[in-house]
Amino acid sequence: MNQDIETMSVNAIRVLSADAIQKANSGHPGLPLGVAPMAYEIWAHYLHINPKDPKWENRDRFVLSGGHGSMLLYSLLHLFGFGLTKEDLMQFRQLGSLTPGHPEYGHTVGLEATTGPLGAGVAMAVGMAAAEKHLASIFNKPGYPVVDHRTYVIAGDGDLMEGISSEALSLAGTWNLSKLTVLYDSNAISIEGNTDIAFREDVSKRAEAFGFKTLYVDDGNDLKKIAAALDAAAADDSAPYFIRVKTTIGYGCPAKQGTNKAHGEPLGEDNIKAMKEYLGWPSQEPFFVPDEVYDNYHRLAEEKAPAEEAWKKLFREYSEKFPEMADKWKHYFTDEDVEKLSEDPSFYAPAEKAEATRASSGAVINYMKDKIANLFGGSADLAPSTKTDMKDEPFFSAENPSGRNLHFGVRELAMAGIANGMLLHGGCRTYVGTFFVFSDYLKPMARLAALMKLPQIYVLTHDSIGVGEDGPTHEPIEQLAMLRSIPNFRVFRPCDRVETEGAWMEALKSKDHPTALILTRQGLTQQPNSDAKKVSKGAYVLEDCAGTPDIILIATGSEVQLAVDARAELEKSGKKVRVVSMPSMEAFDAQPLEYKESILPKAVRKRVAIEALSDFGWYKYVGLDGAVVSMHGFGASGKASELFKHFGFTVENVVKTAESL
Amino acid sequence: MNQDIETMSVNAIRVLSADAIQKANSGHPGLPLGVAPMAYEIWAHYLHINPKDPKWENRDRFVLSGGHGSMLLYSLLHLFGFGLTKEDLMQFRQLGSLTPGHPEYGHTVGLEATTGPLGAGVAMAVGMAAAEKHLASIFNKPGYPVVDHRTYVIAGDGDLMEGISSEALSLAGTWNLSKLTVLYDSNAISIEGNTDIAFREDVSKRAEAFGFKTLYVDDGNDLKKIAAALDAAAADDSAPYFIRVKTTIGYGCPAKQGTNKAHGEPLGEDNIKAMKEYLGWPSQEPFFVPDEVYDNYHRLAEEKAPAEEAWKKLFREYSEKFPEMADKWKHYFTDEDVEKLSEDPSFYAPAEKAEATRASSGAVINYMKDKIANLFGGSADLAPSTKTDMKDEPFFSAENPSGRNLHFGVRELAMAGIANGMLLHGGCRTYVGTFFVFSDYLKPMARLAALMKLPQIYVLTHDSIGVGEDGPTHEPIEQLAMLRSIPNFRVFRPCDRVETEGAWMEALKSKDHPTALILTRQGLTQQPNSDAKKVSKGAYVLEDCAGTPDIILIATGSEVQLAVDARAELEKSGKKVRVVSMPSMEAFDAQPLEYKESILPKAVRKRVAIEALSDFGWYKYVGLDGAVVSMHGFGASGKASELFKHFGFTVENVVKTAESL
Repeated sequence: MNQDIETMSVNAIRVLSADAIQKANSGHPGLPLGVAPMAYEIWAHYLHINPKDPKWENRDRFVLSGGHGSMLLYSLLHLFGFGLTKEDLMQFRQLGSLTPGHPEYGHTVGLEATTGPLGAGVAMAVGMAAAEKHLASIFNKPGYPVVDHRTYVIAGDGDLMEGISSEALSLAGTWNLSKLTVLYDSNAISIEGNTDIAFREDVSKRAEAFGFKTLYVDDGNDLKKIAAALDAAAADDSAPYFIRVKTTIGYGCPAKQGTNKAHGEPLGEDNIKAMKEYLGWPSQEPFFVPDEVYDNYHRLAEEKAPAEEAWKKLFREYSEKFPEMADKWKHYFTDEDVEKLSEDPSFYAPAEKAEATRASSGAVINYMKDKIANLFGGSADLAPSTKTDMKDEPFFSAENPSGRNLHFGVRELAMAGIANGMLLHGGCRTYVGTFFVFSDYLKPMARLAALMKLPQIYVLTHDSIGVGEDGPTHEPIEQLAMLRSIPNFRVFRPCDRVETEGAWMEALKSKDHPTALILTRQGLTQQPNSDAKKVSKGAYVLEDCAGTPDIILIATGSEVQLAVDARAELEKSGKKVRVVSMPSMEAFDAQPLEYKESILPKAVRKRVAIEALSDFGWYKYVGLDGAVVSMHGFGASGKASELFKHFGFTVENVVKTAESL
Repeated sequence: MNQDIETMSVNAIRVLSADAIQKANSGHPGLPLGVAPMAYEIWAHYLHINPKDPKWENRDRFVLSGGHGSMLLYSLLHLFGFGLTKEDLMQFRQLGSLTPGHPEYGHTVGLEATTGPLGAGVAMAVGMAAAEKHLASIFNKPGYPVVDHRTYVIAGDGDLMEGISSEALSLAGTWNLSKLTVLYDSNAISIEGNTDIAFREDVSKRAEAFGFKTLYVDDGNDLKKIAAALDAAAADDSAPYFIRVKTTIGYGCPAKQGTNKAHGEPLGEDNIKAMKEYLGWPSQEPFFVPDEVYDNYHRLAEEKAPAEEAWKKLFREYSEKFPEMADKWKHYFTDEDVEKLSEDPSFYAPAEKAEATRASSGAVINYMKDKIANLFGGSADLAPSTKTDMKDEPFFSAENPSGRNLHFGVRELAMAGIANGMLLHGGCRTYVGTFFVFSDYLKPMARLAALMKLPQIYVLTHDSIGVGEDGPTHEPIEQLAMLRSIPNFRVFRPCDRVETEGAWMEALKSKDHPTALILTRQGLTQQPNSDAKKVSKGAYVLEDCAGTPDIILIATGSEVQLAVDARAELEKSGKKVRVVSMPSMEAFDAQPLEYKESILPKAVRKRVAIEALSDFGWYKYVGLDGAVVSMHGFGASGKASELFKHFGFTVENVVKTAESL
C-alpha cells in the first residue's frame, strides 16, 4: 500500500458506508463519502470524547445534521470502538438493528441526537453549545474549567436551506457561542439537482450577518486544510465559526460523484467495485477493513481516554476545594430537586381568586425557580403574555451566560430545537413557551423530542377563542388534536390553579416524554373539587351524582366550569349527572381498564364532551351515542365572552345537547 | 395649521389607528404609528391600485406582514375609499365587524392577504412577485406589458426573525424577483424588549447574502428619503430590493414611543391626548380627520384610476392583436380548464398494474399539464420521490420564468407560504409537494390557506410505515390527525389510481378550501370496485354482503386491500362483512345524514377501522364498541413489508380484532 494511514482511515468510512448501504439495498451514500475526511479529522484529532464512557459530561459534542448520512456515524462508532460491531453494520436499516436508517438517540450508543429532518441538528447543536456556555458560567472557577467543551455540527445544503437553521444561527451569533463550530458540507447538490436551481445565496455571508466568523476550505479531501480551519476556530474565543468546506458528494465513486445520483440510493455493485479501485482499496471483499486501519483507530481511541482521566482528577480537586459547587453539580445533573419538590406540600397551594391558568403557571414557575436549580426556560418573544419569566433572574446573553431566562425571539421552531439540544447536553431542565396557536411552528421539534424521549416542557398559552380580539389567526382550534396525536407525548389542559400545579408536576417528573401545558389567557374560577394529584390519572370525577349517572359531562380547561354549571341545570330536571375533568387524554388512556371504567362506565352512553376547540379525537370518549360541544370553524375576532356565547359555549346549549341524546 | 398636507395625512393614519385601538380597548398601536410614513408614501405615490376595482389583475400588491398592525391597513382602506367607513373603524375588533383584530383576506375589501403569524406575509409577497414574473414571461409582448406590477411588503423585526422569511427571501434572490421590494420596519423593539436581547444580526447583510440589493433610510419619518429609496428600487430591474427603514415604534406617543410598551395594548386616553398634541393634530375628538386630509386622499385615489384605464386600453389592443393570448388569458384567469377536465373521461383512466399512489398522482399531473394551462407546482427538493414534476417542462428560474416546475429547495414552510401568495395573486393553479411527515413543517401555512379559503393542493407522499428503511423520522404517524383536524381543509388518502384521480379532481374543483393528497411510497393493488366519482362522498361501500352486515371494516389508502383480504377471511366463517373505503373523513362528514347512515348504519356496532397511522380521530366512526387497527408508536426502520407485519397490519390481526368485538 502506498497510501498513508490517514487516507486509508478516511476511505474505510467510505467503504463501510457504501458496503452497508449496498447490503441493505437502501440508504444515502453521497453524504458519508463526501464528508468522510472532515468527519475523520474532527473525530481523530479534535473531538474530546471517550468511547469507553460515551456519556462523560465534559465531552465535546458532535452532531451530523444530515441524518440520512447515518452510515458515516455508524462507521465512526464502529471504528472508534463504541461497541457497534461489523455485524451491526451489516444489519444496517433492518428491523431491530442498532443501525436504523437515520441515527436514533438512545438507541445506538455514542449518538448525540436523532437527526433526519433537515436543519434540526443545527438547532440542537446551538442548544448544546448554549448549555455548555451557561453551565460553564455557573460552575467554572479560576483554574478549574470543569465545563469546557466544544460543539461541532456538520450541516449540508439542505440543512442550511431550512429556516430553522437561520433562526438557530442568528441566536448563536446573538449569544456569541464561541465554542460552536459549524462545518458546511458544501457540495452544491441537492435531490432535485444542482443547488443553483433553488439556492444561489452566499451562505457564508449569511453566517457572517448572524455574527459568525467564516472560513473556507477549498478542498474537502485535504485533511491539512480542514485541520488548519479547525485550529483557527478552536483558537479564537471571540465568535462562533462557520467553515464552508467544498466537498464532492459521493466522492470516490467515479460514476456518480458530484451528482444527485449519489445522494439517496445504493451505488450498485459495479460502482462499489470501481470505487474501491479508484480509492486504491486493498480488497473487494465487502466490509473489509485492513488491520492497520483498525490499529490506527484503536490508537486514536486510546489516546482519547486520558482527557477524561485528567478531567476526573480536576473535578475531584474542584469538589474538594469547592464542596458547595460539587453539591450544586448534583442539583444540576440529577433529578433530586424534582423529587424533593414533588413531596413539597407548598407546591400545591390553591389560589384564592379566579385567575388565568397562564398566571397559575407563572406562579408555579416562580415558586420553582429557587427549588429547581437548573430550571432554564423562556419564550419566543411572548414572555409578558405566556408568563414564563422567572422574576428577578437575569437573562442568558453573551455578556451574562449565567442568566436563566431565555429570550428566543420570534423563532418557535428553533426555540424548540435548541431546547432539545440543551436537554441532550444535560445539566439543564428546560421549558419553552409561546401562544398555543403557534405550536404549529414548533411541532416538528416537539415530535423530535417525543421520538428522542426527551422530557421537554411546552408552556402554551392563549388556548382557545378565549384569545378574543386577536381573532382567527391567533385562536387555536385544531392544535390540541395535533399535539394529542403525537406518540409518546402528553398534553395537559388544566381547569384551574390546582390542576395547573398537578400538570406542571407531571411534566417535571417525566423522564421519557415531552409534555405540553395548555393554558388560558382568560381568568378561570377555582374549582372546589379539583385535585392536583388526580391530574396524573388524566381524568377524574369532579362532581358526581348518587348511583349510576344518566349523563356524563366531560370537559377540560376553561370549559370545566361550563360543565359544572350545566350539571346544576340538568339536575334541576331530575337528571343524574357526573362531571369528569379530563386534563389529559393520554394520561387517562394509560390508566388500568378498571380505573377507566370507574370514571366512564361503558354502560353510560349519554356523554357530552365540552371543549372550545375542534371535536377531533373526542369521540373516543363519547362514542356514537354521545355529542361534543366544540368549535367547527376558525373562530372570530371579538370580546372573548361574546365569542363563547356566539359559538355555543353556554349552559343552555350544553343542556340542550345533553337532553337531545 | 402649519403642517403640510402630507404630514397631516400620515398623522391621520396614526390618529385613526390609536383611536380605534383605544375604543376597542385592544390592539397594537406601535406598528401603525411607526410605519405610517412609509405606508403613506407607498400608497400615495407608488402603488398602482384602483380603490374602485380592488381586484384589477395588474394592480401592485401590498402586504403588511405584521398583521397585528391591522389598523394601519384599515386606516388606509378607509382614507383611500375602499369602502371601509369610519363606523367600521369604530367597530375595530368587534364580533362581526369588517375590521377584525388581524387582517382577514376575503373579509375586508382591499386586503391582499391574511397576516398575523409573523413572516407569513414575506413568503406570500415572494409568491405574488414570483407569480407576476411567471405570468409576465408568458403574456407580455413587445409594447404590451400586460402583466407588469410591483409587490411591496413591510416586514418587522419579528417577521425577519422567523425562519420562513429567510427561506422565502433566499428563493426571491435565487429567482431574482426584481419587482419585489421589502421594507424592513426596523424599530429595534420586540415584545420582550430591545431586539438586542435576541436579534443582533445584520439583517441587511443577510438580505444581501440572499441576492437582494439593500438600501438604508435613516429616518422613517422622512417621506423624501423613503421616496428616494423606493425610486431607486423601482428604477433597478437587476435585483429585488431590501430597504431597511429606521423607525420608532409608537411614534407620536411621547410616553411610549421607542419602547415595547407601545406594541400591544391601547395607548390610554391620556397618552392619546398627549399624542395628538405632540403631532399638532387639530382636534381631540376621537376619529376626527380634517376635511383637507380627506380631500388629499380623495385626490390621490382619483389619480389612481387612470392607470387601470390605460391598462384596459392596452389590454384591448393586445387582445385584438394577439387573440390567441386573450384566449390564453381566460385559461389562466378562469376555472374553465378544470371544468372541462372534470368532464373528460380519459382523466379517469384506471391503471392496469399495481402502482404507488404517488406514481398515480404523477400520472395525473402529467395528464393534466396540457389540459390546465396555468398548472404551476413543485416540491421541497423531493420531486423525484413525490413525482410532482411535469415532464419535459422547464423549471421556473431567473433565466426562464416561464418554467412551470418549481424548485423550492428544502423549505417546506416557505414553499407553502409562497404558493399561497401565488394563489392570492391569481392566474396560477398551484400545487406543492413533500414527504408526508414533513407536512409538520408546512402546517402553519396550510392553516393560513384554510383560513383564507385558498384551494391550495398539497401532494404528500410516503404516507406511513410503508416508508420502510428511512425509519421513524420519516414515517408519518400523527400527520393525518393533524391535517384532518384543520377546519375548512380536506384530506384524501386514496387506495389506488382511480381514487387518486377522484381525489385530484376534488382538489382541483375546490374554490374555497385547501386539499391534501396523501399518497403511498409503495405499490398498491388496483381495487376492482374503486370509484373515482364516489371519492367526492368521502366514503363508500367497496365490497358488501347481502343484508345488514355483522361487521364493517373501514380503511383508507394502503390498508384498503388489507380490509378486502380480511373480509374474505371473515366471510369464510359465515360473517357478513362490508368494506368501506374512506378516502376523506371530511368529505364524508359533509354528506347528508341519510347517505352517512347508508354507508355506516348506526345499528351496526361491530366496526373496525384500519389505518397504519395513529388511531386519533377514528372513534368517530367506530364508537365505543368498535376497534382500530393502527400504529401506537413511532414506527421503525426496516423493510416496509416486515414493518406492516411487525405492527399488526395482517389479515390475521384484523380478523382477530373483528372477532373480539
